[in-house]
Amino acid sequence: MTPSDPKLLANIRIVLARTSHPGNIGAAARAMKTMGLSHLTLVDPAVFPNSQADAMASGAADVLENATVCTTLAEALAGTTLALGVSARRRDIVAEVLTPPEAAARLLGEAQAAPVALVFGNETSGLSNEELSLCQGLVTIPANPDYSSLNLAAAVQVLSYELRQAWLGRAAWPQPEIDAASGDEMEKFYVHLETALGELEFLNPGSPGKLMLKLRRLFSRTRLAKEEVNILRGILTAAQEAKAAPRNRNPQ
Amino acid sequence: MTPSDPKLLANIRIVLARTSHPGNIGAAARAMKTMGLSHLTLVDPAVFPNSQADAMASGAADVLENATVCTTLAEALAGTTLALGVSARRRDIVAEVLTPPEAAARLLGEAQAAPVALVFGNETSGLSNEELSLCQGLVTIPANPDYSSLNLAAAVQVLSYELRQAWLGRAAWPQPEIDAASGDEMEKFYVHLETALGELEFLNPGSPGKLMLKLRRLFSRTRLAKEEVNILRGILTAAQEAKAAPRNRNPQ
Repeated sequence: MTPSDPKLLANIRIVLARTSHPGNIGAAARAMKTMGLSHLTLVDPAVFPNSQADAMASGAADVLENATVCTTLAEALAGTTLALGVSARRRDIVAEVLTPPEAAARLLGEAQAAPVALVFGNETSGLSNEELSLCQGLVTIPANPDYSSLNLAAAVQVLSYELRQAWLGRAAWPQPEIDAASGDEMEKFYVHLETALGELEFLNPGSPGKLMLKLRRLFSRTRLAKEEVNILRGILTAAQEAKAAPRNRNPQ
Repeated sequence: MTPSDPKLLANIRIVLARTSHPGNIGAAARAMKTMGLSHLTLVDPAVFPNSQADAMASGAADVLENATVCTTLAEALAGTTLALGVSARRRDIVAEVLTPPEAAARLLGEAQAAPVALVFGNETSGLSNEELSLCQGLVTIPANPDYSSLNLAAAVQVLSYELRQAWLGRAAWPQPEIDAASGDEMEKFYVHLETALGELEFLNPGSPGKLMLKLRRLFSRTRLAKEEVNILRGILTAAQEAKAAPRNRNPQ
């Protein structure tokens, strides 16, 4: 498989173990779907299905409908070759601790060959030691040491986001295409600007000096659209007309 | 300041505009605090303060208590030199679109010198065109094109996470290159521009219509330096003088 192959994301299971609040299950489903993940597995949820889960899922009802419900984590991980547990830093656990980008790269690498899982524990108690023992590594989201308690769905969102970024190959996000003015149109604009500023006696036409350079820098820093050049030239023309053919507002 | 200086995060405002659901405000406060952000600004929230906000904030009650409530986005951005709006991709907006890591780098770079803001719109309608016109750039979270609707607090979580990763030194961030005009100086410039264009009869003062919006977009896409604002206002004044007190070059 190649990067950005949808089958890679389809091989990633999001596993929520012993979730207390059904709203969090729905919010997690929404978070997953925004990042293109669809395989949700619930281990012994307190309440499911549930109207609050449906409400929080918003447009991700299909993720809830297709969710697998298991009684044990071992069952949820059947067939996977890599399972990473999401946990705050724990000094009592001797395991490899990965950052979210490292975890995303590992999961996607492995997902080329087989299903993999990312496992989230209970909202209050996290993953139990028994649950962690079924994982081949830990993922920790670097957080504020004074308050590291991400909401369950927020943690699902961050890790799903990192999975999608890795899947996208961190490709540069394309800039919006504007109908940019050509170099020729820009030069005509600068000539018009310099002429108009001369007529306004804002600069000396014989020695435009640094002013034109500063104005060129300003306008070249942003790419101007054709329409914007037309607006600016319209303003210049209005100012030129005001100077050259004034109406006598205060006739003497 | 050096990377990982807490003052950098303290210079970043999270601005939530016209939030409908108080629970989202609380969840956003929690998301912020997990990543070390503390400055929450609310623009015209539907309901605040509120018990549901408190419940969703969990251990981040202090972020809610210290939140600033404003009536307009312009007020919320007072004193900032860079404001980035969070938006899904929009083909109708001509603006620089940044990825979350790019946005984090830009905000932290600028936060070395002055307050900056990350602006989130209403849950349903997002940021209005008027709100976007007050931002100097857009941030888009790369999402599933078939379902890109992140929950508000989830979007706050992802961007706060990226800010923290950048702050922790995971990315090189640029130094602020220019002595940027403040939001207040930019607003004064736009008032001057609108007045001058009215005097030049280039726009109807009663209905500036789309023209002012287009000009705002043009100038907010690039960050103007204080000196550049002074030059542009000098040109406007010269044009106003030409119109108001014309010399009769061709006396009749």
